[in-house]
Amino acid sequence: MTYVKRLAGREESNAHIASFRPSLSGVVADGFLFKECIMKVKAKGLALAMTLSMAGTSAWAAATRDEPIQPITAPRTTHPAKVELGKKLFFETRLSKSGFISCNSCHNLSMGGSDNLKTSIGDHWQQGPINAPTVLNSSLALAQFWDGRAPDLKAQAGGPIANPGEMAFTHALAIDVLQSIPGYVAEFKSVFGSGRVDIDKVTSAIAAFEETLVTPDSPFDKWLTGDDKALGARELAGYKLFKDSGCVACHNGPAVGGNSFQKMGVVAPYQATSPAGGRADVTGKDEDRFKFKVPTLRNVELTYPYFHDGEAATLEQAVDVMGRLQLGRKYSEDEIGKIVAFLKTLTGDQPLFTLPLLPPSSNSTPRPTPFD
Amino acid sequence: MTYVKRLAGREESNAHIASFRPSLSGVVADGFLFKECIMKVKAKGLALAMTLSMAGTSAWAAATRDEPIQPITAPRTTHPAKVELGKKLFFETRLSKSGFISCNSCHNLSMGGSDNLKTSIGDHWQQGPINAPTVLNSSLALAQFWDGRAPDLKAQAGGPIANPGEMAFTHALAIDVLQSIPGYVAEFKSVFGSGRVDIDKVTSAIAAFEETLVTPDSPFDKWLTGDDKALGARELAGYKLFKDSGCVACHNGPAVGGNSFQKMGVVAPYQATSPAGGRADVTGKDEDRFKFKVPTLRNVELTYPYFHDGEAATLEQAVDVMGRLQLGRKYSEDEIGKIVAFLKTLTGDQPLFTLPLLPPSSNSTPRPTPFD
Repeated sequence: MTYVKRLAGREESNAHIASFRPSLSGVVADGFLFKECIMKVKAKGLALAMTLSMAGTSAWAAATRDEPIQPITAPRTTHPAKVELGKKLFFETRLSKSGFISCNSCHNLSMGGSDNLKTSIGDHWQQGPINAPTVLNSSLALAQFWDGRAPDLKAQAGGPIANPGEMAFTHALAIDVLQSIPGYVAEFKSVFGSGRVDIDKVTSAIAAFEETLVTPDSPFDKWLTGDDKALGARELAGYKLFKDSGCVACHNGPAVGGNSFQKMGVVAPYQATSPAGGRADVTGKDEDRFKFKVPTLRNVELTYPYFHDGEAATLEQAVDVMGRLQLGRKYSEDEIGKIVAFLKTLTGDQPLFTLPLLPPSSNSTPRPTPFD
Repeated sequence: MTYVKRLAGREESNAHIASFRPSLSGVVADGFLFKECIMKVKAKGLALAMTLSMAGTSAWAAATRDEPIQPITAPRTTHPAKVELGKKLFFETRLSKSGFISCNSCHNLSMGGSDNLKTSIGDHWQQGPINAPTVLNSSLALAQFWDGRAPDLKAQAGGPIANPGEMAFTHALAIDVLQSIPGYVAEFKSVFGSGRVDIDKVTSAIAAFEETLVTPDSPFDKWLTGDDKALGARELAGYKLFKDSGCVACHNGPAVGGNSFQKMGVVAPYQATSPAGGRADVTGKDEDRFKFKVPTLRNVELTYPYFHDGEAATLEQAVDVMGRLQLGRKYSEDEIGKIVAFLKTLTGDQPLFTLPLLPPSSNSTPRPTPFD
């Protein structure tokens, strides 16, 4: 897995389209991962640098500033063939009853790992009850789903497949489909030592792929690790305000969030459009009502709209609401602009990979039934 | 654009999962295309061969056998930055009213450029009237759509965007969306010399990408160009039967079809489940009723189900129906098996590319309305 510098929307950035850097990686099915094949081109001089390293992931530089946010470390992939299988399954529409919906439908890796919709579209165009959180850096969260009902990515991955409002399938039927596809049987055998497909293997492979979906090397991370020029004055002022006014109390750590459950509407109540009860739906405790997992702010410029009900269309709206409802503070337009400028420095290098080719169904593969 | 050897389902093939070959390519936004970065690994010896060629597409070997089917030639890409923009637009869900459906939804490049459904799913889960044809090698066809109502890929590309049963948008609204996204404006300016987005530029870029989606170097093409060992005895027997019994009368040329309109049901009538009238819907002529563009048989093992109404679930069924209705011949089970073995040799190297990253919407970008 390699990463590509995202075309950023930062106010003070020098980034523009010509600086777009492609980073390429491929995985061969016997489990050997080409870690990096990074090609850099300078348009004028045609200077060409090519690196091929085949070892594990190089560690990102350790943090040198003592801040409540820490830089993201790229994951160490110990089983690249499992990651490659998980990537196929992440794009596998045949895990849905309709044959039309895959993990990537709602956690679109072309779009910040989200669908950029208020709430997602499920089987038969059902309207989902809650905003699809980004899959990017989700391995850093203390639990999965807005209410934390899944302890980890593996537990999460089985949920949407069998949810009648999402992929509307059953685990048993999904396994029947995969087991009937010779290309998958061979790949499960190669990865797990047995070609017998089961939901444990499926979700384990999907989770292994998702663990690689981290976004290191954002401008803010560069600043954290010592590059004074990585942030402009307005972005730094935004970060100072983010800290001083209290945002950082919940949005901290490597994921800038994702590590606690907090009540939505601390100072003033939030009028949610979603019926979701939050953490209370899991614990049954009344004090957990409207407590949600604090979302990561990594890549937040890509993961609009915001909040568990997707009701904030822009970052400016989200910052304004958070200030008033969580902190009891009415930010000025200038203050909001500064915080948003800071938030846009949290866009890191995006996972970039070849679109997987899925093995074809056999004659015995059960066919999808989208219109039943 | 580079190509990868598809994991084949051929009966006599030695191909298995360990021979899967990743081929990588990247395009930088200034228009410079890295044509090939092919890495081959032999698992045991760790032998490593890396090729980087930056010139145009290498020509495939010319046909050496005098046959009614000709090998596919890889396209010569003259404007790689336009191809790269077209690739983004092909994956762009914001070209649909819902923000959920892209070209790739129904012409899925992980699945042979098709959706593997009888008929496709459109906005609000509408059931499409006809089977989505593969986009692979579609540039070789004499016209686009089953009834040929679009003369070329550029004319086709605008259709689904504005079709109320498919992406359900309008060209004007789609252009408003793209024009509001700074990343697209910069890229249109880079490619076309002007950042003013219009439907002509959009469809031109999508067509440029689609023109690269050809699948050369199939086992049959290798045999055509002189490799006697590329086909097994049963596959060759299938090809001989394909020729001798008349299939080749319509399925010929480089695309093994796609170059004429023919009546579905020549010897006996076809009981279609689709209301489509075929070519008559375009010409208004009664003699064109139920005439459809002959589909390409390239990669046909990947593009199930078959026929314009998707009613043939397997290749065996399709061959049986074609024999009876088009040729007045009842193939034996053994004959069908041979023809199917030949058809599976038409699976070529699949286009392989990095999943594109789409530029984020701005605050002024109109939001999708999936549930209105």
